[in-house]
Amino acid sequence: MSDPFAIRVITDHGEAVEALTRRHGFEETTLSEGARRGIRRIFGEDLTASEVVDRILDDVRTGGDEAVKRLTAQIDGAAPEQLEVPKAEWETAFRSLDPGMQDALQTAAEQITRFHEKQKRSSWFDFSDEGALGQIVRPLERIGVYAPGGTAVYPSSLLMTAVPAKVAGVDEIVVSSPPHQGMVSPLILAAAWVAGVDKVFQIGGAQAIAAMAYGTESVPHVDKILGPGNIFVVLAKKKVYGVVAIDQLPGPTETLIVADDSADPRITAADMIAQAEHDEMASAILITTSPALAAAVRAELDIQLETLPRGDIAQAALLNNGLIIETSDIPTAMTLANNYAPEHLCLLLRDPWSAVPLVKHAGGIFVGEHSPEALGDYTAGPSHVMPTGGTARFYSPIHLNDFVKVINVAAANEQAVKRLGPATIALADAEGLRGHARAIEYRLESKR
Amino acid sequence: MSDPFAIRVITDHGEAVEALTRRHGFEETTLSEGARRGIRRIFGEDLTASEVVDRILDDVRTGGDEAVKRLTAQIDGAAPEQLEVPKAEWETAFRSLDPGMQDALQTAAEQITRFHEKQKRSSWFDFSDEGALGQIVRPLERIGVYAPGGTAVYPSSLLMTAVPAKVAGVDEIVVSSPPHQGMVSPLILAAAWVAGVDKVFQIGGAQAIAAMAYGTESVPHVDKILGPGNIFVVLAKKKVYGVVAIDQLPGPTETLIVADDSADPRITAADMIAQAEHDEMASAILITTSPALAAAVRAELDIQLETLPRGDIAQAALLNNGLIIETSDIPTAMTLANNYAPEHLCLLLRDPWSAVPLVKHAGGIFVGEHSPEALGDYTAGPSHVMPTGGTARFYSPIHLNDFVKVINVAAANEQAVKRLGPATIALADAEGLRGHARAIEYRLESKR
Repeated sequence: MSDPFAIRVITDHGEAVEALTRRHGFEETTLSEGARRGIRRIFGEDLTASEVVDRILDDVRTGGDEAVKRLTAQIDGAAPEQLEVPKAEWETAFRSLDPGMQDALQTAAEQITRFHEKQKRSSWFDFSDEGALGQIVRPLERIGVYAPGGTAVYPSSLLMTAVPAKVAGVDEIVVSSPPHQGMVSPLILAAAWVAGVDKVFQIGGAQAIAAMAYGTESVPHVDKILGPGNIFVVLAKKKVYGVVAIDQLPGPTETLIVADDSADPRITAADMIAQAEHDEMASAILITTSPALAAAVRAELDIQLETLPRGDIAQAALLNNGLIIETSDIPTAMTLANNYAPEHLCLLLRDPWSAVPLVKHAGGIFVGEHSPEALGDYTAGPSHVMPTGGTARFYSPIHLNDFVKVINVAAANEQAVKRLGPATIALADAEGLRGHARAIEYRLESKR
Repeated sequence: MSDPFAIRVITDHGEAVEALTRRHGFEETTLSEGARRGIRRIFGEDLTASEVVDRILDDVRTGGDEAVKRLTAQIDGAAPEQLEVPKAEWETAFRSLDPGMQDALQTAAEQITRFHEKQKRSSWFDFSDEGALGQIVRPLERIGVYAPGGTAVYPSSLLMTAVPAKVAGVDEIVVSSPPHQGMVSPLILAAAWVAGVDKVFQIGGAQAIAAMAYGTESVPHVDKILGPGNIFVVLAKKKVYGVVAIDQLPGPTETLIVADDSADPRITAADMIAQAEHDEMASAILITTSPALAAAVRAELDIQLETLPRGDIAQAALLNNGLIIETSDIPTAMTLANNYAPEHLCLLLRDPWSAVPLVKHAGGIFVGEHSPEALGDYTAGPSHVMPTGGTARFYSPIHLNDFVKVINVAAANEQAVKRLGPATIALADAEGLRGHARAIEYRLESKR
């Protein structure tokens, strides 16, 4: 048996509660020295990330394409002739993939389509003697999806956002992704092809968010912006919130596994590592009723990290934010999990369904040994874009509702005005709004 | 016949398109001299509204109740002993109203309850040979409703937010409203009583938003903050977005009426005035196919404004933002209306239902002469909290969905992992995430 990995282990309940209870939500992070150097080079002075984003937003709002190209040249090294990537290039990118990869993208898209088709909501009307009330459900007209580029390229995230939009009936899906060495990643282009998006722009960072929020000569302004990104992207999304809708402010990814003595240590450790390999800020937490499992998982972590290509990243994440909590029983474990409100909640239990009703806060629940988060990340069907940082208390994963809006409809008749008129007039007058009261009185008088 | 009111009239289509097409969304407004004086008095220097809000948020986050009381004393003139208003006082406030008013509040609450009960969504599961997929729909645990006080007291807005939350099953509804001369408006307290809220705090402005977002010794932190307010409240909501969820960033209220020659000029003018009397920034727009109606409405506006208690405000709003557009036909009128994406869209047409399918963007549609917006403001049933400033392109009115969240559930079995495993591994490896691929491979190997 290998050495137990030096992850933090908590056996005291109070300490566990404290470790898992957090103030949720987005906070501006400290910039790396490299990022600060880049800012001084481009803007000629030290600026906070927030100040950088303010400048970029103003610049693109007033300068349009010219500003976008200038910023792209400064930030990404070279400005493209054309901001839009022609559709033929996406198709080429897709056709150039090996057949297994083509099939994988299509399988993922089909699974996502199927899951989201079940979520379709209908407009509804309720007719009565007093007329009709109802709600019209309409897809958004145009959305923008940000797809990060550079070192981290996630075609799956593009599918997880664009495919649900397509199912919802969004008219036009625009993608923006930073050029890396002069071009958008072929994997992103191939995913755009598979998802059936409408336009792809080679623009990254806050300038992409600005272009989609305000519109430029080339980039149409959209109604909602979705997708993950670095601190500049996230800050830009927060700042344009209200000008457009946004999905959420994503933070580092996180998983919480609740396991009993039936769990396989090798699989449990693999799931923790799959989370931890994302980046050094990722969190992987195990809550277990079995001290034996806890010990075996620590040994497995050590073995598996040894041979993992991204072992350094995963190890740093596990040391920074990893946690094993030993607790007395499953209900207590679930209460702790609810305190944390994890993005991913994985149930490696003998009877995993019995724990599902105990879940109050989570982005997604992965029920049982054959539902690893890794399946959820790619092919299970639900979107892997889920609330982080405890915001699962109030946010939902991306789903069909993100791509529709509701219009309320009131069609009262004379009888309704007669019945509700006196109450309406009383309330209007109580609020000092005589004009509202009159609008009702004139109808009550009207003999037409 | 009275003089025609000097509202702007447009007969040219291009000019109408330009007048109605706007960049949507929230922008910081200029502060009045009175507000600036207040800021200098309290903070000892000139600050922008955004800077004021930053200070208040920091102050309350670190200082808790003590900070809230100090700010309340400075801003509202006196700090209350206790921040919470005991429930007995709400009941007294309700019992002190005349029976007509008691009945009016209850009628409104019943209508709102009925409309929102029809919107309930169920959790769902779809079982197959590969396991199960589904979504759990759960009410939020705790929400905060801001109810403005001082000169503008709208008990109806409190009902329009708290009652849908109650229907959705929210565990705890917290209300915060500024004290005026040492107490919260009795109408707000009575509405809180009728709506069945759980706690009322006498705190106003950005300090109320901060207290509900971060929590203090007295005020529990909430999951979502809703409700209208002044510029400080709106800015504070935007700044705490992500720490909590928020409903939207409300701007000035607006109505757009589409009318043909069947419309009654007196009623049409009354509906414009009912909108305009809210405040000087309110917008009331009439688009009509009938020049005769346009002329008659202008005369009616003049007559009705004469005797309106808030005539000065309504007149200023109509001169600032009022508009009458004469156009050729109903489809053109509806296209113009969609360009504007109004909060309220009123159809005063011979055949109003035929125009409903042409609506792309609106907060609420008011169908026909007996569905005045005034009814919608109080007793029709749909919430009157609706998207403004063109954000109806992507936001919905407050409805049941605002008070629930979704948790995705994936329960794949061995067969699912077998079928989806290869695609999952291919995608994980393409993204450089070997740990994800392994989590699948170990399952495929597992013989247990």
